[in-house]
Amino acid sequence: MQGKFIVVEGLEGAGKSSAIASLVSHLQAKSIATLTVREPGGTPLAEALRDLVKKQWQEEVTAETELLLMYASRAQLVHNVIRPALAEGKWVIADRHDLSSRAYQGGGRQLGDAKLQTLKKLVLGDFVPDLTLLLDLDPEIGLERARARGELDRIEQEAMAFFQRTRERYLEIARQERGIKVIAADQPMAEVHQALVNALEAELFAHGRG
Amino acid sequence: MQGKFIVVEGLEGAGKSSAIASLVSHLQAKSIATLTVREPGGTPLAEALRDLVKKQWQEEVTAETELLLMYASRAQLVHNVIRPALAEGKWVIADRHDLSSRAYQGGGRQLGDAKLQTLKKLVLGDFVPDLTLLLDLDPEIGLERARARGELDRIEQEAMAFFQRTRERYLEIARQERGIKVIAADQPMAEVHQALVNALEAELFAHGRG
Repeated sequence: MQGKFIVVEGLEGAGKSSAIASLVSHLQAKSIATLTVREPGGTPLAEALRDLVKKQWQEEVTAETELLLMYASRAQLVHNVIRPALAEGKWVIADRHDLSSRAYQGGGRQLGDAKLQTLKKLVLGDFVPDLTLLLDLDPEIGLERARARGELDRIEQEAMAFFQRTRERYLEIARQERGIKVIAADQPMAEVHQALVNALEAELFAHGRG
Repeated sequence: MQGKFIVVEGLEGAGKSSAIASLVSHLQAKSIATLTVREPGGTPLAEALRDLVKKQWQEEVTAETELLLMYASRAQLVHNVIRPALAEGKWVIADRHDLSSRAYQGGGRQLGDAKLQTLKKLVLGDFVPDLTLLLDLDPEIGLERARARGELDRIEQEAMAFFQRTRERYLEIARQERGIKVIAADQPMAEVHQALVNALEAELFAHGRG
């Protein structure tokens, strides 16, 4: 039986890592085999691309270049890791996936959603997550948390307006499309985790589904 | 006055490097400032991508990934090097450009030209060379020359059928589209160079043009 593909999305500092740990623990308690992955990265080539995309360059990195590198990394991860794991029946929990490109490059960098949809179709075809959990947080709070963790990378150093646009695009897509559940990430952690587990149960384990 | 963008295309071993040297020398004799570039590569990030795309990986590199990396490299080169040089009035001579992706990934890897056209439009918009010179050669001969030069990279190690498909796609596009001149590369070098210079003169210096 094919596994499920669950994506955790959100801005820097929204609490994705601890959300993923909580989801994994909930699934493991049900004896479901899980695999966690992160984007960009997750294969040797994709990790090399992650390094290039986060690095500070002496030259301008165009929005298109950044977008193409994200999709190149994603193509490797989906083809070489995620699809094979799902075929083995594992549930895959991803720290970011396609929605990140639509929010960051499409919204933040203002490339627009039409270009993003075109590229998504070209690279991923009709491959979509079974469930996306979007941790929504004011970027002022999220960036403060990310800064406290250490040095910021090339993308994390963008101006606040970039992250505001990214957040708005995230929420806009979540309102318009199915399969994306928004979780308020400014609640106490125990409540965030409970909301995540409730969404997971309702979407993938409720009667007649999953 | 805006410079001209000239692309030299062809399979491995078709003689692109010596063709470019000959074109540069012809233009310099006319006191035209030139800049030569190669793809993939030509900026620090694009050269890093060149290394990744040519490297042997333990994982499968999907045809889509290879294509996205070629376009990421191209986006950097066009934006940061080629367009600024043309704006300064320099003539830019490129060892490969967009037609290579259409021939190698579109033809050789059989991704089809529709995907290629979509990606080209998304990344390059309406940016096109003023002239493309395609050095046509039987891949059996070209690969033999490339092998004699040293170790073959990941793409150069493809089966002969891959290069046959690539050559066919090159010729197919050259028949259908304007601005691509096919030069037989199995002639003695002096004749190849004369044919290149003749094409350059006819296309970019003839009365009422260029």
